[in-house]
Amino acid sequence: MHDKIGRYPFMAEPFHCDFSRHLFMGHLGNSLLNAADFHSNDRGFGMNYLNPLHLTWVLSRLSIEMNQMPEAYDRFAVETWVESAMRFFTNRNFRIASLDDTLTYGYGRSVWAMIDTDTRQPVDLMGINEGKIMEYVEKEKPCPIAPISRVKMNDEGELVREIDTYYDDVDMNGHINSVKYIEHVLDLWTVDWYRKHPVRRIDVAYVAEAHGGDRLAFYRQQTPDGGYAVRIMKIEVNDEQSTESQQTEVARVHISFNGDL
Amino acid sequence: MHDKIGRYPFMAEPFHCDFSRHLFMGHLGNSLLNAADFHSNDRGFGMNYLNPLHLTWVLSRLSIEMNQMPEAYDRFAVETWVESAMRFFTNRNFRIASLDDTLTYGYGRSVWAMIDTDTRQPVDLMGINEGKIMEYVEKEKPCPIAPISRVKMNDEGELVREIDTYYDDVDMNGHINSVKYIEHVLDLWTVDWYRKHPVRRIDVAYVAEAHGGDRLAFYRQQTPDGGYAVRIMKIEVNDEQSTESQQTEVARVHISFNGDL
Repeated sequence: MHDKIGRYPFMAEPFHCDFSRHLFMGHLGNSLLNAADFHSNDRGFGMNYLNPLHLTWVLSRLSIEMNQMPEAYDRFAVETWVESAMRFFTNRNFRIASLDDTLTYGYGRSVWAMIDTDTRQPVDLMGINEGKIMEYVEKEKPCPIAPISRVKMNDEGELVREIDTYYDDVDMNGHINSVKYIEHVLDLWTVDWYRKHPVRRIDVAYVAEAHGGDRLAFYRQQTPDGGYAVRIMKIEVNDEQSTESQQTEVARVHISFNGDL
Repeated sequence: MHDKIGRYPFMAEPFHCDFSRHLFMGHLGNSLLNAADFHSNDRGFGMNYLNPLHLTWVLSRLSIEMNQMPEAYDRFAVETWVESAMRFFTNRNFRIASLDDTLTYGYGRSVWAMIDTDTRQPVDLMGINEGKIMEYVEKEKPCPIAPISRVKMNDEGELVREIDTYYDDVDMNGHINSVKYIEHVLDLWTVDWYRKHPVRRIDVAYVAEAHGGDRLAFYRQQTPDGGYAVRIMKIEVNDEQSTESQQTEVARVHISFNGDL
């Protein structure tokens, strides 16, 4: 039996680093999703086991909070473990550390649901591979960052950008890639902004799926804690019934920056 | 002394694969650039040696031709070697193979110049680390794909898209990332197009550098060989002297697709 905690090495590849030579948050998020995928596949409740059963994991929430970001060529490890599993949701945590384990870069939290790919309905986790996942629940390992934020937002966000989505945005499931939302949201601020305000924490609530060709609208407002909330709405252009006034929320994001705001 | 040919393992990460479960060409290009970087760093003429001397490699041409693309979770190796080195240009080749070497996915070619980062002028390669690079020239290893195409194009390309560039497009040098041009160009075709027309070969000529915030215009035309040429022009929005009518060519791309055209 595998350890409850998985540990996977990655490198901050030079072309995955921003102007400041630090890993982009989107690419870090990708490493976390890879680690989750490797961990669950190795333990009998991953996509390789699920997909032939017409089941899949759906990412519902993702939070990442960093003390510092890996720099270009840094090798780092992503540790991941299942903190708890309920019938319809799993809480999975992450720790990002140096390979020699002397440095903790940061932590992550996530919430996943399992759905039937035919009906798109939630599936009881306890029925999968005889409840295999329960053997791997690890309650002791600390994840000393705040719980996942609800990303509260009133309806007064300002429309700051609309973009089209393309081939490169679409993942293997035919949906807009979870990491692409992070990249598009971080693109709402300029390179100059990031010179003084690196990202400290990002919370993403994935609400609905968008598809390649959908137009995305980004509404932003400052939050009382000094951060920003961004609501992403989709405008489905392939739906002949829709007009531009019909928008559906697809994701909501909260970002906290370091530096003076 | 290291072997002349470097060999580096990669994985087709699931979130780096397109709707068809094949690795995106842009992510493959990123792996090739990583391999080039690792190879030159290990041999004393890489960025780690050059940057303290205020020197850097600049990618001038990149061609990739694939028999097939790695699929999700496939592990593959990128082999790379210097085919020839002249005073101001180096030809570097690539082979993309399965880890067990039984399968060749495809090949790549590239041309690099070395420049002084202060003056932006070309630098004589033979003066770098006592002409170290000449010790690693490998003329025997085959690279059985056509030479790098000139990407001929008349001035009649059709303007098919204009996009803004953002934080996520900018690399560690403060320029638009070489791989992002590939992604933006491939985004000119829809997901539906790629269902019947996977990319067979891409040739990119990098002409000038663009910066975050620049607006990019894409002009496209069919070529006599059945492929497409795309000219990318930048509209510098930070230059107060410029008007929208002043455009500078930054890259030119030729793409050949498989399937009926």
